[in-house]
Amino acid sequence: MVRRRQVVFTEISPSEFFYRNRDLAGFSNPTRALYSAVRELVENSLDACEQFGILPEVQVTLSPLEQDRFDPKVYQIKVKDNGPGIDPKYVPEALGRVFYGSKFKLRQSRGMFGMGGTMAILYGQITTNIPVRIWTCIDGKNLHYFKLMIDIQHNKPIVLEKNTIKVNEGTGMTVELSLIGDYSRSSVKIVEYFKQTAMVTPYANLYFTDPHGREWIFERNITSMPPPPRVTLPHPYGIDVEALRRIIRESKQENLLRFMSKNFHRVGERIALKFLNFAGFEPKRNPKSLTNSEIVKLANAMRKFDGFLQPDASCLSPLGEELLKAGIEKELRPEFVAVVTRTPSAYSGYPFIVEVGLAYGGKYIPPGLTLYRFANRIPLLYDEASDVAWKVIKEDIDLRRYKVTSDTPLAVITHICSTKVPYKTVGKEFVADRPEVERELRNALREVLRKLSIYLSKKGSIEKAKKRLNIYAKYLPLIARFATELAGKRKPPHYRVLLSNFHKESVAESVVEKYG
Amino acid sequence: MVRRRQVVFTEISPSEFFYRNRDLAGFSNPTRALYSAVRELVENSLDACEQFGILPEVQVTLSPLEQDRFDPKVYQIKVKDNGPGIDPKYVPEALGRVFYGSKFKLRQSRGMFGMGGTMAILYGQITTNIPVRIWTCIDGKNLHYFKLMIDIQHNKPIVLEKNTIKVNEGTGMTVELSLIGDYSRSSVKIVEYFKQTAMVTPYANLYFTDPHGREWIFERNITSMPPPPRVTLPHPYGIDVEALRRIIRESKQENLLRFMSKNFHRVGERIALKFLNFAGFEPKRNPKSLTNSEIVKLANAMRKFDGFLQPDASCLSPLGEELLKAGIEKELRPEFVAVVTRTPSAYSGYPFIVEVGLAYGGKYIPPGLTLYRFANRIPLLYDEASDVAWKVIKEDIDLRRYKVTSDTPLAVITHICSTKVPYKTVGKEFVADRPEVERELRNALREVLRKLSIYLSKKGSIEKAKKRLNIYAKYLPLIARFATELAGKRKPPHYRVLLSNFHKESVAESVVEKYG
Repeated sequence: MVRRRQVVFTEISPSEFFYRNRDLAGFSNPTRALYSAVRELVENSLDACEQFGILPEVQVTLSPLEQDRFDPKVYQIKVKDNGPGIDPKYVPEALGRVFYGSKFKLRQSRGMFGMGGTMAILYGQITTNIPVRIWTCIDGKNLHYFKLMIDIQHNKPIVLEKNTIKVNEGTGMTVELSLIGDYSRSSVKIVEYFKQTAMVTPYANLYFTDPHGREWIFERNITSMPPPPRVTLPHPYGIDVEALRRIIRESKQENLLRFMSKNFHRVGERIALKFLNFAGFEPKRNPKSLTNSEIVKLANAMRKFDGFLQPDASCLSPLGEELLKAGIEKELRPEFVAVVTRTPSAYSGYPFIVEVGLAYGGKYIPPGLTLYRFANRIPLLYDEASDVAWKVIKEDIDLRRYKVTSDTPLAVITHICSTKVPYKTVGKEFVADRPEVERELRNALREVLRKLSIYLSKKGSIEKAKKRLNIYAKYLPLIARFATELAGKRKPPHYRVLLSNFHKESVAESVVEKYG
Repeated sequence: MVRRRQVVFTEISPSEFFYRNRDLAGFSNPTRALYSAVRELVENSLDACEQFGILPEVQVTLSPLEQDRFDPKVYQIKVKDNGPGIDPKYVPEALGRVFYGSKFKLRQSRGMFGMGGTMAILYGQITTNIPVRIWTCIDGKNLHYFKLMIDIQHNKPIVLEKNTIKVNEGTGMTVELSLIGDYSRSSVKIVEYFKQTAMVTPYANLYFTDPHGREWIFERNITSMPPPPRVTLPHPYGIDVEALRRIIRESKQENLLRFMSKNFHRVGERIALKFLNFAGFEPKRNPKSLTNSEIVKLANAMRKFDGFLQPDASCLSPLGEELLKAGIEKELRPEFVAVVTRTPSAYSGYPFIVEVGLAYGGKYIPPGLTLYRFANRIPLLYDEASDVAWKVIKEDIDLRRYKVTSDTPLAVITHICSTKVPYKTVGKEFVADRPEVERELRNALREVLRKLSIYLSKKGSIEKAKKRLNIYAKYLPLIARFATELAGKRKPPHYRVLLSNFHKESVAESVVEKYG
């Protein structure tokens, strides 16, 4: 058998890959791209501020560069923050190179792939060919300016202009880029994005000037911030063979006991010893002497050992039940609300916390189920139907068991925070169905639904009681009158006392239901 | 203002990126990973065969390596094909390096990102640490064997073993890898994947041995193959600034007229001249002398000029109306079927063709709408709700206008074929909502729905006619009898002739409806 032709192989750069496949990163069309560019830049600013404990001030200005054309057309986005800024020596690479960033850490942050800013710049460049302009100040005195483009084929930045000027009180980062967008079709999502972000970031000031010159102001209503997220060691539960092999390669400990207690989250010598006994490894063994199959055995034992402590929540920053409840009450004004923050869990060694809120009734929640999704304090507005939360609600929960029908006015709010949110797309639109995340969501949902079900039962019995009372109120006077007449008396008995007793009972029930 | 700490930046390799973010590529959990690994390897085999016009024979064997454990557990996947094989000098890189592959071409193929095989190997390695084994034969005589792992941090293959043996009649590729999977939960999707693949690849022999030792055989029923997909030049419509800049850089033509007519799909000198006039460029101008803003102007003009020819369909290989209809009739046995293959269109310079089938009624289609999605002849079985086809059906089409209600038994089949399908995830689960694709889907759907609506109208009037006939059949004899009695006669008139006339009419209507 003779082959005339052969398959030809080539290598492409990471920039090139995402340039060719920008749909992967949320830059499919002018509508989505405008939304994605705004959120990626805002999320970079919020992350930078929070990491240094700075109360965020983020100003976003979106202006049309072609006044008299219809959408899609060229817009300029300018995002300015009061964060720590980026050291000028890193600026070109940080914003002009894919897979180069500060987010490849085990730390809770909005950004996850370290490429949102670069993707926005790349999309701007390929649609308008206008370079991005960046200002950064890290010492309060020197403002560094860059004008950049990306050499996509070689995945590296091209600096077109660069200078430094003295300022009196400079701070943070400003990024200004141009792209072809469609504001008329993305305005609803963009404004909704700011609203929901403000809801879960009540300590930030967000200012948005839209292309019509309108100002949207979302001011902070608290000045206390969550502690800056910390970098953590990986949790041993669910660590994979590759991760273990890599930790062994980079470790300096000469025996397994110290190796286990120095490289994993919440593993001390006592637990390390118990675990090594369970796994059948000599504590004095040098980790570097393990064979491939022993590494597999050790990794498998980590999955099975149930003596590890739950991950420490202090590296995560959930909203907390109080803030979540307050946010829901403020935005949705429901008749009933229940919230739960689950205890921390882990998947593949990454700790995570699931929070779920449930709101029922009131004027603002429409009939049927509305789902609001958040992950690491950012709202997820696209591709709801592919999200793990939707999957759990549709497949695992029998809503009828909780007295919920298809037209019950119900809102479910989910928040997943983690050192690594398992997104399915680089565009961070929805969360994958990792089994551990599914389980936590399921348990959280059941917990709040049980509370709702109790409330609905009580509401049902109160309504029955009220109906009963109405019947009594109608017939008691008649019965009293007839009885009086039959007995030949003139004055009817004190039936009003009876009625007010019934009334007291049902009021008492209402009170129980409201605060019980 | 003094900063104590600074943000730290690092770079990671493409392998590392996808290792950390395997949810992006469809490897979220043991269920999905098993499904993804099977399909990625099968699709590589089918692509390789088709590219060389070889009738595909693909054998897939899935065997549990841990017999007595419950899922998830370690499985071995072995996929063997009769394709052209991969030149041994490329094997390690092609399968052990992310962003290195043969699919970065403007050519219709199932694979799109050139990384499916590598991802399957990577996932196998991180869950089991067992190396992948590969056999390839490209000359019919020498069988080359490789045992590989991936150095994820540096994105490069590590060859553990390698040898070559003489064979009498060797052919194609065999890949054998081990991974932690969950067959009990993925079996339905995997079998469905083979079934639907067989439906749109009727010229392939597919053999699947499942972990229980059962054999699933899908044999070809035709031996003619579509012509091998060809590599094409980019279509000028929707080419972006970056692409244009790159084509200019790599071109050798010294004037714009020749530049336009040598580098774009279906642009000859006549159209190039017209276009350059329209765009306001001198045909003799050297393309390399264009300034940045002139390149933007030229790219914008390409979007606006309406004199370009539609992309040539010959580089694409749609199913065609006949095959699509036959497939639907065979699988769904509907009462009514309508299909349409749209004329070729383009987005961002990539030609594509949309095909839509509509099936109504019969025994197999359940009430409500069922959607079957295909792209470049592969079934898409996950994340339907995020697909552009679902978006168009839900948002753009008012089904009631076509007499379709919520319990009408209806199946919609969509097939998008393109030199580049705009998937939203590397796992190729769903197609992004590119406006041009939306438009084609919308038009195709409306076309088949109009046909259905006509059918349903006719069906309605036939049913009315039948009812009328039934009423006549019931009352005519009575009227005849009463009239005969009233007239004092004995023999009723020949009303049966009348009835049979009615009958003929309604049969005629049926015929019109069926073949008209």
